[in-house]
Amino acid sequence: MKDQKTMNGAESVVRSLHGAGVDVCFANPGTSEMQFVDALDRTGLMRCVLALFEGVATGAADGYARMANRPAVTLLHLAPGLANAGANMHNARKAKAPMVNLVGDHAVRHRGYDAPLSADVEGAAAPFSDWVKTATSPETFAADAMEALGAAMSRPNKVATLIAPADIGWDAGGVVAPPPAAPEYAALDDGALDKAAGMLGPETVLLVSGRVLETPEAVAQLQGIAAQTGAKVLAPTSNRRFERGAGRAAISKVPYPINMALETLKPYKRAILIETVPPVAFFAYPDRPSLLLPEGCEIVTLTGRDGDGPAAVAALAERLAAKPLIASDPLPPAPQIGAITAATIAAAIANALPENAIVVDESITGGKDVWRMTEGAAPHSWISLTGGAIGDGIPMSVGAAVACPDRPVLTLQADGSAMYTLQGLWSQAREGLNVTTLIFANRTYEILKTELFAVGANPGRSALDMLDLDRPNLDFVALAKGMGVPGRRVEDVAELQRAIAAAMEEPGPYLIEAMM
Amino acid sequence: MKDQKTMNGAESVVRSLHGAGVDVCFANPGTSEMQFVDALDRTGLMRCVLALFEGVATGAADGYARMANRPAVTLLHLAPGLANAGANMHNARKAKAPMVNLVGDHAVRHRGYDAPLSADVEGAAAPFSDWVKTATSPETFAADAMEALGAAMSRPNKVATLIAPADIGWDAGGVVAPPPAAPEYAALDDGALDKAAGMLGPETVLLVSGRVLETPEAVAQLQGIAAQTGAKVLAPTSNRRFERGAGRAAISKVPYPINMALETLKPYKRAILIETVPPVAFFAYPDRPSLLLPEGCEIVTLTGRDGDGPAAVAALAERLAAKPLIASDPLPPAPQIGAITAATIAAAIANALPENAIVVDESITGGKDVWRMTEGAAPHSWISLTGGAIGDGIPMSVGAAVACPDRPVLTLQADGSAMYTLQGLWSQAREGLNVTTLIFANRTYEILKTELFAVGANPGRSALDMLDLDRPNLDFVALAKGMGVPGRRVEDVAELQRAIAAAMEEPGPYLIEAMM
Repeated sequence: MKDQKTMNGAESVVRSLHGAGVDVCFANPGTSEMQFVDALDRTGLMRCVLALFEGVATGAADGYARMANRPAVTLLHLAPGLANAGANMHNARKAKAPMVNLVGDHAVRHRGYDAPLSADVEGAAAPFSDWVKTATSPETFAADAMEALGAAMSRPNKVATLIAPADIGWDAGGVVAPPPAAPEYAALDDGALDKAAGMLGPETVLLVSGRVLETPEAVAQLQGIAAQTGAKVLAPTSNRRFERGAGRAAISKVPYPINMALETLKPYKRAILIETVPPVAFFAYPDRPSLLLPEGCEIVTLTGRDGDGPAAVAALAERLAAKPLIASDPLPPAPQIGAITAATIAAAIANALPENAIVVDESITGGKDVWRMTEGAAPHSWISLTGGAIGDGIPMSVGAAVACPDRPVLTLQADGSAMYTLQGLWSQAREGLNVTTLIFANRTYEILKTELFAVGANPGRSALDMLDLDRPNLDFVALAKGMGVPGRRVEDVAELQRAIAAAMEEPGPYLIEAMM
Repeated sequence: MKDQKTMNGAESVVRSLHGAGVDVCFANPGTSEMQFVDALDRTGLMRCVLALFEGVATGAADGYARMANRPAVTLLHLAPGLANAGANMHNARKAKAPMVNLVGDHAVRHRGYDAPLSADVEGAAAPFSDWVKTATSPETFAADAMEALGAAMSRPNKVATLIAPADIGWDAGGVVAPPPAAPEYAALDDGALDKAAGMLGPETVLLVSGRVLETPEAVAQLQGIAAQTGAKVLAPTSNRRFERGAGRAAISKVPYPINMALETLKPYKRAILIETVPPVAFFAYPDRPSLLLPEGCEIVTLTGRDGDGPAAVAALAERLAAKPLIASDPLPPAPQIGAITAATIAAAIANALPENAIVVDESITGGKDVWRMTEGAAPHSWISLTGGAIGDGIPMSVGAAVACPDRPVLTLQADGSAMYTLQGLWSQAREGLNVTTLIFANRTYEILKTELFAVGANPGRSALDMLDLDRPNLDFVALAKGMGVPGRRVEDVAELQRAIAAAMEEPGPYLIEAMM
């Protein structure tokens, strides 16, 4: 390329990322990223989606990656911007979703001074990244970006953060770098396959996550193995993505509440792990174990998180000559006129869901019945909060809609959690995304009340004050309007079903506040 | 105390903090902090202010500390919650405002597992804290909290973060700890006093920050010294707090734009520093220095950030037998009917400001004339963004109003920056705080356009798209309504002045969207 001598570092990175297949950027830039804004503008190679808050950018990148199976790039500003981005980098990291963050830092010569925005950028990146590097020259900057992309796409997928001092972006000398090598899976271990095949039976649980859950054939093969051997198939509580619904084999999850989780796993003396690790309690509780499998349970890892789960499942099914089995609960009856409760809202959603929808689930307690009751809904993708850092639902829906522009997105959003990254609604409006946000308005941090009782407290008025959101009440229809998203409030569940179906059929974003 | 044997760790911390004078908690708790919620509830010793987002809690603590001159405590949840809190911890740290963060972590035995919320909590705290510690036993937990408080109150004030594994909070054995020793200032150096007194003259600049700017007598003494010697008095661009207005000596600041800053400091061959360090450019720019004082400028530190600035100023004034001098620009004429511009909005604010108000300034470009034109407004306190991490204005107003319940608060808030931590409006409504939020609605990240041109770019449509907020337009009146805060939109500047004055006179929060 003729112009490489005069290309600046930022442009070499944009061109290299594009050459490697990255064509979406979720951005909340600041001064130290202006050379990237300039390079993105001049090259016109990427779709740039502006976020009003960094956590929206990284949450959108998480949703995008889960649906596109490749990373978007985010553009962030210095250590405080990275901090704002951190919670949803955390969720992506726990989901094993690939992400590449480009974070501007001060120019190298400026970093030694106590400027207002000076802080430890690498330090802020480390707790929420699997891979961190600071670029050191315009000439090697693009190669660093390809190394970041390679890390993000390695197995399992990772969150990679590349820090870019401003002068390394604006100085000339950038050199376009070739894409990273295609990632490789860890090889399947024949010994583990033998062992797994030999230990199946009614006291065996197959715990599976990762790409298996995105592969309907693999889940059907697993259920066939289970039917043949009496074993049980379960997914962990938190997973990157499911492909599910009518005509696909269903799978249950380990429940979130500690006592239910322990009860669910109690019967098993043997566990086979596929693209997962031994399940751990969300939190520790007095007199409850951290590890959820019964003590003494024999554990065999058929393939780890770095392996090819669907291939492992296929090999196991072949070894056992098990036939795929497809079964799921039927669609529940449509709800009649009446109050919106955890049970009725689930039936409304199940009946309203159009074919090929994407469900983004951050409904927390209000959505506890939705998972089960949508088993027989029209086939859909399901992505949900993985790292427990609330405020991923609305942002993920932005990224999912950008990744799949022809598919309607339904966000199941708890009210308390919605308030962490509500700014994502504005990006939905700006990009004209077909996202329907369903607010589960129970006006409380309901889950924390449960947890407060779980540590043995007998809460008084001021404790409950810290967990209630009803003074003043949030008006989500007004909040949505403020960000350019139309919406309405619904109090009847039959009406709710019609409202969801209508909003998903219409293009553009819409918000429904369901009063529970 | 009789019940110490059965007191848990969390209660011992709450009781000790209260014993040391901490009686406000800004909280966004999660599961790992339920024992604190329980202890706060049972003891009833603190005013608990709930925030819908962690950055609101730390920003409120920043505003509280700047007005109360002592820390509030914040209650935060694990590494992702700490990340959300980080940007405003950063601003407080740069302001040298005292803050104590209590951050829950998993129980000790649970930390080794890859639970969904597991991440490096100390690592997330470090970039935005001056002091970090993890509690190790219920018995020593309260003593750790007192050490944190001592660090926060040491000179200059600091951000201290104490990490509390859940079991250390819920286990019995807590022991109430005595308050930390009162902080001491670094002693005044007689040699530096001699030197400073001997170098004053027309080519000398006195750069002062910290407590000096909060002490009207000290600023008057400085202006007396300046009048007598021909020296110039300036504050850095970013400072913790000013006490200013009619009847108080005014002081100018080093401007934010790099060329103006260099031009302002160019005449000086000698600089005397009081509670500050040599001024640094906000950002580095090609062909511009990082240090703002001219090359070869002789620098004497009369007292550092750990010293007693007002005492140093008094000593210098005494040495020179300089009389205090009080002078400020007159109040500008009230604006006539017409458009809202940077100049007219400043006149409206200056004329609307009631006596004893607190101004919280995050107006960025739209407020560039407000500082100068409020010099002769009714006496007021002025706190502003210090660390460049936008999203501190609305939260700081919450804390300032909690610290000073009898004083009206006016928040000068840029629209783009408002969207980072808008959730603070809800806390204003919940607590019934007399805060008037004035949105400078220019519908753009105007400052970034300036910065884009400053790196030499010639922006096209897609670059400007990343910096404009007008698609869709934000409706701040609707957003405020959604969080329980009444408001209105104003397009005429004379009307704006009336609206500001009326809102500040009324109790409770109000939002005014000024269309620029």
